[in-house]
Amino acid sequence: MDNRSHTLGRDVGNADAGRPATRTGDVMDEIRRRMSGRVLTPGEKLPSIRGFAKAMKVSPSTVVEAYDRLAAEGLIRSRPGSGFYVAGAVPPLALAEVGPRLDREIDPLWVSRQSLDAAPGVLRPGCGWLPADWMPEGAIRRAIRNLAKAEDTLLADYGSTRGSLALRGLLARQFAAEGIDAGTDQILLTASGTQAIDLLCRFLLQPGDTVLLDDPCYFNFQALLRAHRVRVVSVPYTPTGPDTARFAEALEAHRTRLYITNSAIHNPTGASLSPQTAHRVLIMAAAHDLTIVEDDIFADFEPEPSPRLAALDGLSRVIRIGSFSKTLSASIRCGYIAARPDWIEGLVDLQVATNFGGPSPVAAEIVLGALGDGSYRKHLAGLRSRLARRRREVSALLEPLGIRPWVEPRGGYYLWCRLPERTDGAELARAALRGGIVLAPGNVFSVTQSAPDLMRFNVAQTGEPVIDGLRRSLRAVGGGG
Amino acid sequence: MDNRSHTLGRDVGNADAGRPATRTGDVMDEIRRRMSGRVLTPGEKLPSIRGFAKAMKVSPSTVVEAYDRLAAEGLIRSRPGSGFYVAGAVPPLALAEVGPRLDREIDPLWVSRQSLDAAPGVLRPGCGWLPADWMPEGAIRRAIRNLAKAEDTLLADYGSTRGSLALRGLLARQFAAEGIDAGTDQILLTASGTQAIDLLCRFLLQPGDTVLLDDPCYFNFQALLRAHRVRVVSVPYTPTGPDTARFAEALEAHRTRLYITNSAIHNPTGASLSPQTAHRVLIMAAAHDLTIVEDDIFADFEPEPSPRLAALDGLSRVIRIGSFSKTLSASIRCGYIAARPDWIEGLVDLQVATNFGGPSPVAAEIVLGALGDGSYRKHLAGLRSRLARRRREVSALLEPLGIRPWVEPRGGYYLWCRLPERTDGAELARAALRGGIVLAPGNVFSVTQSAPDLMRFNVAQTGEPVIDGLRRSLRAVGGGG
Repeated sequence: MDNRSHTLGRDVGNADAGRPATRTGDVMDEIRRRMSGRVLTPGEKLPSIRGFAKAMKVSPSTVVEAYDRLAAEGLIRSRPGSGFYVAGAVPPLALAEVGPRLDREIDPLWVSRQSLDAAPGVLRPGCGWLPADWMPEGAIRRAIRNLAKAEDTLLADYGSTRGSLALRGLLARQFAAEGIDAGTDQILLTASGTQAIDLLCRFLLQPGDTVLLDDPCYFNFQALLRAHRVRVVSVPYTPTGPDTARFAEALEAHRTRLYITNSAIHNPTGASLSPQTAHRVLIMAAAHDLTIVEDDIFADFEPEPSPRLAALDGLSRVIRIGSFSKTLSASIRCGYIAARPDWIEGLVDLQVATNFGGPSPVAAEIVLGALGDGSYRKHLAGLRSRLARRRREVSALLEPLGIRPWVEPRGGYYLWCRLPERTDGAELARAALRGGIVLAPGNVFSVTQSAPDLMRFNVAQTGEPVIDGLRRSLRAVGGGG
Repeated sequence: MDNRSHTLGRDVGNADAGRPATRTGDVMDEIRRRMSGRVLTPGEKLPSIRGFAKAMKVSPSTVVEAYDRLAAEGLIRSRPGSGFYVAGAVPPLALAEVGPRLDREIDPLWVSRQSLDAAPGVLRPGCGWLPADWMPEGAIRRAIRNLAKAEDTLLADYGSTRGSLALRGLLARQFAAEGIDAGTDQILLTASGTQAIDLLCRFLLQPGDTVLLDDPCYFNFQALLRAHRVRVVSVPYTPTGPDTARFAEALEAHRTRLYITNSAIHNPTGASLSPQTAHRVLIMAAAHDLTIVEDDIFADFEPEPSPRLAALDGLSRVIRIGSFSKTLSASIRCGYIAARPDWIEGLVDLQVATNFGGPSPVAAEIVLGALGDGSYRKHLAGLRSRLARRRREVSALLEPLGIRPWVEPRGGYYLWCRLPERTDGAELARAALRGGIVLAPGNVFSVTQSAPDLMRFNVAQTGEPVIDGLRRSLRAVGGGG
């Protein structure tokens, strides 16, 4: 953890080192940060002294001093009469340094890593998955035992470029039940749901393009887009989907290539798209030639299907992606893309070039076995009612702390909650972390950093010990009832 | 297959459509190709009429005609007094259109897909893997049966960001035996060997950078680098490693960021790096601040370890990558990166952002189980002697056809062979494909397209039926003994 905070949180790293920050040092740090974040690349001209002084709220002489020192370190070079330029080779990409500099408590990458690498005993109400003992263990073990008897080619060969035909067939039948007519050739299995989106970004975007996100949205969308060096604009998410007036404004103001969203049981809000909003979004998308990636990862948590962009559009400009990590297993990694056939062709090329195929065929076989297990449908039904109960219970536990759901979700395990007045989520997360609890404060999800007073709770990971810790943390930061 | 040839091979597609090629059409096609390959992007200026006419060997009026027609189609726009510019939005990336336009028989992506998606009964002496019945089936099945009894957290959770600690520990011990001192924190598990290289390219490169490859080299290196939009330069590979004089020239002539190579049992040649060449390459790399990715995927096929750049350098500027696809299973996908600790930190961020982790923890557990199985060491020893015998047998079968190994490999399953005089490998591959045999002609591997008279054979996939088909194909193209 020390190592991590050092790398990901520059502020923390400096404070740890006990080096007093100076204004010149701040300017130097900012330039170094832009270089490792590749905002400034070798050969590029540095900001003008006057302009940068204004932006950094320091005097021009401080910037001159900083540039001179960076030149002495060999990082930049002066060309008399022209200015300063970045010297040397491109440094490795430091993803944490791309985009705005954030406190580690609200940095998407830091929160992901904190949840994934949490020490045993750490509580994770901020994480994005169900506890292992909520998963269909019996079905998984049966699928693995059957796998041990599979044909040797399945256990040893690379498999086909689109992935297991049987699993794609099963998906195609599920889509057909929703009214989406997709042949198995329109489905590509991927190494994960995240990799599905990554592959689509590589396929559709180039650096400098504009991508539209919901505000708030799943935080890893932002981390992922940093890796693609694109511009992110956002529209507020309402209880019935994106704010359509703001959506229209955004499309007018920016030539937008892609919109990435969850329609059903939106992450983090738990809201679901209404039919009217879905229809309006598709009309605007058509007018502006916008492509939409609909991440359907929470679909199986719905009591009955709510409107889907992919179903209305018929996989023309909407691309569906998903995975089995939320209801089956996060360990057996397998995602998918359903899209126009000609796009799938291009995506296959890209996936062969960058991963020599998609998911492990062995993983796809376990998924297929578990989904086809007689117990799986019952597992889903049980999960839905258990979660409905748990959402009510956790709401009741949070209520006395002055923490209240923003909307009542149709399903799933998230409660997006408003904190007591004048409570800063990041501050609360910092306090909770000292007590061994990883929270997911609102601004981790907010593109515009406009959700400091909100927090996402995973109800399946929020028990009495979390509530107790939360109560203590609220007292420590001076908030709460 | 029809679908594939249509998408990947423009020439083939046009011929199929029966549209006679015209000079104007050729120029239009070339511009379209550059647009879908993103060599030309929206807003960019088209080549000058005079310059492009010269490059395409047509008259300037032909180019004017082509540009006018493209403008009429709305693909480009004329700005009076300034020239023609690309209009509209960026099209999806067509990887097959990046770089030189190749016959499908020698297009790296096409050959990969042809091998992966081959219909049952098609013979694949050109493919890059062993038949399933050469793999350690017993060890894999035992590992899967043990997996069925694993803890529920292993079967259901995402796992840590670096991947299975036990598997990283096993790798660290193997590295230590080679004299490479790498802590488990210096090892990152990835979804595959290819994904390991892809992650490193994203970490170290940006569009326009220069990357050095061996000529010939593993063909997917070229396909992968297309996705990164970098410039590729190459140096000839000799029986003792890259030609060091040419290596020096390349580093002098181009500011080169990265060199990607296999040191032991080089693909496709089967050659191995000599100690002197290894030492010289590292000295040159230090002088030019070159980073090296050493792909060690064939390591276990060596009778005893040959020199490794990573071992000489100690993971300072050399990064080791590998996977278990060649000796254990290609279905259980898992690769790794061993590198400087600070680089691993950055790579973890990038892998979380783009794949929310590395390999399936379930896959890593099967790999760990199979590697630790009592039978695995014996499997490797058996594989080595079986392949040594098979290399001799296939050499003897190819000899009467006038096909002779370029070098005698120390191990592995490839024979890089010279074809009979005046035989064109691509033509031979085309003829063989009609007979249901997928070959891997030399120019698939050659960056400079200078190996038309060479061919890579996978000895484990080259039996009597392949030899018979090859004899017929050689006769059909008028070559051979």
